[in-house]
Amino acid sequence: MSPKRAVILLSGGLDSATVLYLAREQGYQCYALSFDYRQRHQRELAAAKTLTAALGVTHQILQLDFPWGGSALTDPSLAVPQRQPIDQIGESIPITYVPARNTIFLSYALAYAEVLAAQQVWLGANVLDYSGYPDCRPDYIQAMGEVYRLGTRQGRTGAPITLEAPLVEMSKAEIIQLGNRLGVPWQDTWSCYQGLVVACGVCDACQLRSGAFASLGLADPLPYQAGN
Amino acid sequence: MSPKRAVILLSGGLDSATVLYLAREQGYQCYALSFDYRQRHQRELAAAKTLTAALGVTHQILQLDFPWGGSALTDPSLAVPQRQPIDQIGESIPITYVPARNTIFLSYALAYAEVLAAQQVWLGANVLDYSGYPDCRPDYIQAMGEVYRLGTRQGRTGAPITLEAPLVEMSKAEIIQLGNRLGVPWQDTWSCYQGLVVACGVCDACQLRSGAFASLGLADPLPYQAGN
Repeated sequence: MSPKRAVILLSGGLDSATVLYLAREQGYQCYALSFDYRQRHQRELAAAKTLTAALGVTHQILQLDFPWGGSALTDPSLAVPQRQPIDQIGESIPITYVPARNTIFLSYALAYAEVLAAQQVWLGANVLDYSGYPDCRPDYIQAMGEVYRLGTRQGRTGAPITLEAPLVEMSKAEIIQLGNRLGVPWQDTWSCYQGLVVACGVCDACQLRSGAFASLGLADPLPYQAGN
Repeated sequence: MSPKRAVILLSGGLDSATVLYLAREQGYQCYALSFDYRQRHQRELAAAKTLTAALGVTHQILQLDFPWGGSALTDPSLAVPQRQPIDQIGESIPITYVPARNTIFLSYALAYAEVLAAQQVWLGANVLDYSGYPDCRPDYIQAMGEVYRLGTRQGRTGAPITLEAPLVEMSKAEIIQLGNRLGVPWQDTWSCYQGLVVACGVCDACQLRSGAFASLGLADPLPYQAGN
């Protein structure tokens, strides 16, 4: 019997790297999919390449024509927030929200999964730390799962492609604990929203990441800018 | 008060042209969106340009990186079916189905609508003639509407962007009657799946179109290849 196949949405960050390792542990033949949407932190694509190369996983990076701006992650004229109090991150929808981004990513993943005759698409979204993003919440993921079921040949004629988001209710610290068990090489992942050589340490993504490592009494092997 | 805004998914075909005219009649400031996904019938993009230029409507054509094939519309090695009995078209999911295509289109339209602060996205899907396509059916459109509501800042914090598919239960003949009332210039639309200069007359799209005109006792102003 041919192995089960899964498409993994791989940003190159801590969450999606953990999901990749988890899917492999569960026996899936993984096809990683990343997007170059002219994000400020293109550095994450290099991380995705390193992660997949180390595992011998098929990896595609798609270029997205996404010309509308509206987010600090894609519009250089909008600044990435810094040093937000960590308990206020996610209180409202942040300026780093990219309109409909996850819906676009999940749509491409669905197309790729259907062409591969894959059984699943895995997404590293989690809501507890980033509850500000509407397209990371459980009700959204469930709605997208319905689109997966109804919008494809595979869903109408056989077993639908399912959308898996195993981290959705986990905290960043719990994800790090899971990743440690799975052997995720944190030094090869990238979370920082800034497009710098070394992680800034003060954007929301850096603060949540470094705060979670610190809360576990662990050192993040990724270097941060001096003083942060 | 600023006019209501709508994003119109405009393939350049008979259905989406009718939807564009209908949205304008209902008072919407329209933003047309088309996709160059290396479809066999790129000719439809020229039709979309002609239609929008005549109305002075803003029109964007996005390039899609959609490398997986799996459809006769994007894979030159797969032939477009010809001269299928018209009552069998749509009985099963046709080889011209492009995996997750409408989901990708509708995701981009959602992003564009959110950046524009538009109220609606309009889609020309109709199910009676093309019931074979899973991503043209009412239950799919409803599921995508839920994604619109839950997956955006606009949906979580204010009035959601709604997904309108006013033709979904109409026959092709009914759509032609509606378009005639609205003054849609049929000669500037393009339906044929083949990438030829003149419509082939024998693919599913041509057969449904020309059959509907004929059933109304009307002449399609679009020329077809001699003998078809």
